[in-house]
Amino acid sequence: MRSTRGWAADGSGVLRRTLLERRDLRPDDIAVRIDYCGVCHSDLHALREHGGESTPLLVPGHEFTGVVTEVGREAERFAVGDAVAVGNIVDACLRCDMCEAGQENFCREFPTLTYGGADRRDGTVTLGAFAREYVLREDFAHRLPEGLDPAAAAPLLCAGITVWEPLRALGVGPGTRVAVVGLGGLGHLAVKLAVALGARTTVVSRSADKAADVRRLGADELLVSGDSGTMGAARGRFDVVLDTVAIAHDLGPYLDLLALDGTLAQLGHLGTVSIETTDLLIGRKRLTSAGSGGMPQTAQLLEFCAEHDVVADIEILPSSRVEESLERLARGDVRYRFVLDLSDLDVATP
Amino acid sequence: MRSTRGWAADGSGVLRRTLLERRDLRPDDIAVRIDYCGVCHSDLHALREHGGESTPLLVPGHEFTGVVTEVGREAERFAVGDAVAVGNIVDACLRCDMCEAGQENFCREFPTLTYGGADRRDGTVTLGAFAREYVLREDFAHRLPEGLDPAAAAPLLCAGITVWEPLRALGVGPGTRVAVVGLGGLGHLAVKLAVALGARTTVVSRSADKAADVRRLGADELLVSGDSGTMGAARGRFDVVLDTVAIAHDLGPYLDLLALDGTLAQLGHLGTVSIETTDLLIGRKRLTSAGSGGMPQTAQLLEFCAEHDVVADIEILPSSRVEESLERLARGDVRYRFVLDLSDLDVATP
Repeated sequence: MRSTRGWAADGSGVLRRTLLERRDLRPDDIAVRIDYCGVCHSDLHALREHGGESTPLLVPGHEFTGVVTEVGREAERFAVGDAVAVGNIVDACLRCDMCEAGQENFCREFPTLTYGGADRRDGTVTLGAFAREYVLREDFAHRLPEGLDPAAAAPLLCAGITVWEPLRALGVGPGTRVAVVGLGGLGHLAVKLAVALGARTTVVSRSADKAADVRRLGADELLVSGDSGTMGAARGRFDVVLDTVAIAHDLGPYLDLLALDGTLAQLGHLGTVSIETTDLLIGRKRLTSAGSGGMPQTAQLLEFCAEHDVVADIEILPSSRVEESLERLARGDVRYRFVLDLSDLDVATP
Repeated sequence: MRSTRGWAADGSGVLRRTLLERRDLRPDDIAVRIDYCGVCHSDLHALREHGGESTPLLVPGHEFTGVVTEVGREAERFAVGDAVAVGNIVDACLRCDMCEAGQENFCREFPTLTYGGADRRDGTVTLGAFAREYVLREDFAHRLPEGLDPAAAAPLLCAGITVWEPLRALGVGPGTRVAVVGLGGLGHLAVKLAVALGARTTVVSRSADKAADVRRLGADELLVSGDSGTMGAARGRFDVVLDTVAIAHDLGPYLDLLALDGTLAQLGHLGTVSIETTDLLIGRKRLTSAGSGGMPQTAQLLEFCAEHDVVADIEILPSSRVEESLERLARGDVRYRFVLDLSDLDVATP
């Protein structure tokens, strides 16, 4: 076993600086020094749901960038010193139809999550990237393209790919009329990517005070969701609506925004939703959902972002301020993604 | 006013032979002698929900074929003697985005339904086609292509177009893997049309005793929905699932049948449905709904059916047996659509 420092919850829901075990490298593993890790809503949910003294240690963090520090004896894709990026899955069966289609995130045997998952070989619970080191199967790491800032690129690995997959699957390109509901971590990346793909992009937000950001991000307009006149006038105007709102809400008003044969992609892990089938029927609309992505599309996203100069708008905090980042994320006080700088873990005593 | 004989419910839910009024022809109207009218599940629902002494007369029937007997002075599309077909809408605004896209069925001002609708000019309640004559705006009648049996073609105007639109919108063609859930009025036409479009077509039904019909209709296989082994093995195998089941049911098992980026089209007017968003997320699946269709696509369907020799499998009953057809439809005792022969209404006394 090897060890690293990280931020772990032991059942109390509070993250404490802790010495963590990482496995010795298997032949196809690499070890990565984690430099930056984004703070995702999922981390917040995982901490809230984590509890009880007998529960395993929870180390959140599943969108990170860093540098390869060691390679297993059969690892071929990476060399020590390579800049890499890792998202929310670190293994999958690689044999099922979904894996063969490059959608390891939908692996029929369920992918191994970057944290809170069960390692496929020894069954141990995976510990996430709010830590200084991660050891993983090299097939699940991506080369970080040159020119991408490693801190601002980290959120591409979860927030970015989550919006990229539906944009691509729904054929968004020049002239597509896209509305992005919610301007948070996912939403602001959805806007940047849709604009870079050539779409006519609109933001739907609760607050009118994001108008300047909307323009800066390259979108064409802002619709304030509480303004029924504006929303009514926008009815039937969009080919694609990406709904990034992560709390329970009525999908009807967003289905109303769709034109004939348009699609609402819901990205907020809403659990069970109620749908009026007539809201789909009138206009022959489609509802879909998306979350994370497959390895080939993640690699494609990173190349696209390098080419089009797209990264997340971030606020970097030393990892010692992780609790502060979570508190501010919980109350929506972030534009638009917190990224932890893990280098402070190198200092022996906090 | 002109008059015709038909089958009307006065609030008791029972259809009685009645003398009905039809309007005098407007300049753009045609009068049609109704020869055949299909019996649709909607008719059953309308009769069940109809009630109270003050409610207007209900005459069901919205998929019919017949012959033009008179044309208004500005009507240009049809001549006396033309064979025509009419579906479930008889007017729309023809100005909104949906009408301009040829989807008068989604008219923003709501289309005028063939029965139970409000006429756009005088506000009277429309009376349906369980009658010997109908008067309508000629724009909402279709030419019945030669070679299509007028009795067996009648169900194409509602059941047929309801399955045709999603098949076309979802790009079903050679090699598409289509599953049709429910082998009734809609389902059997969905199978015939999917097969004619070149799709690899599977039927999902509760009963194994439809195997012979499945083969006769041209489908490749039958999956019995209650057989969990068979259904499990079929998981992830279809690009398109058309669900024609018209009673409340869990959509999860049918979403399970879909392959990556596949679509479940739900056609049964289910009202509010509950969806697990993870059932959509895993495999990036889509849910849509459909019902009836626009005028251009209905015309296209009729031409396609004439070319590919597709009509409904029907049982013809004289209109005097309409109550029997409804009772048998209610208990699923029909293969696969009842069509009423309205010529018995010519006899002055029953």
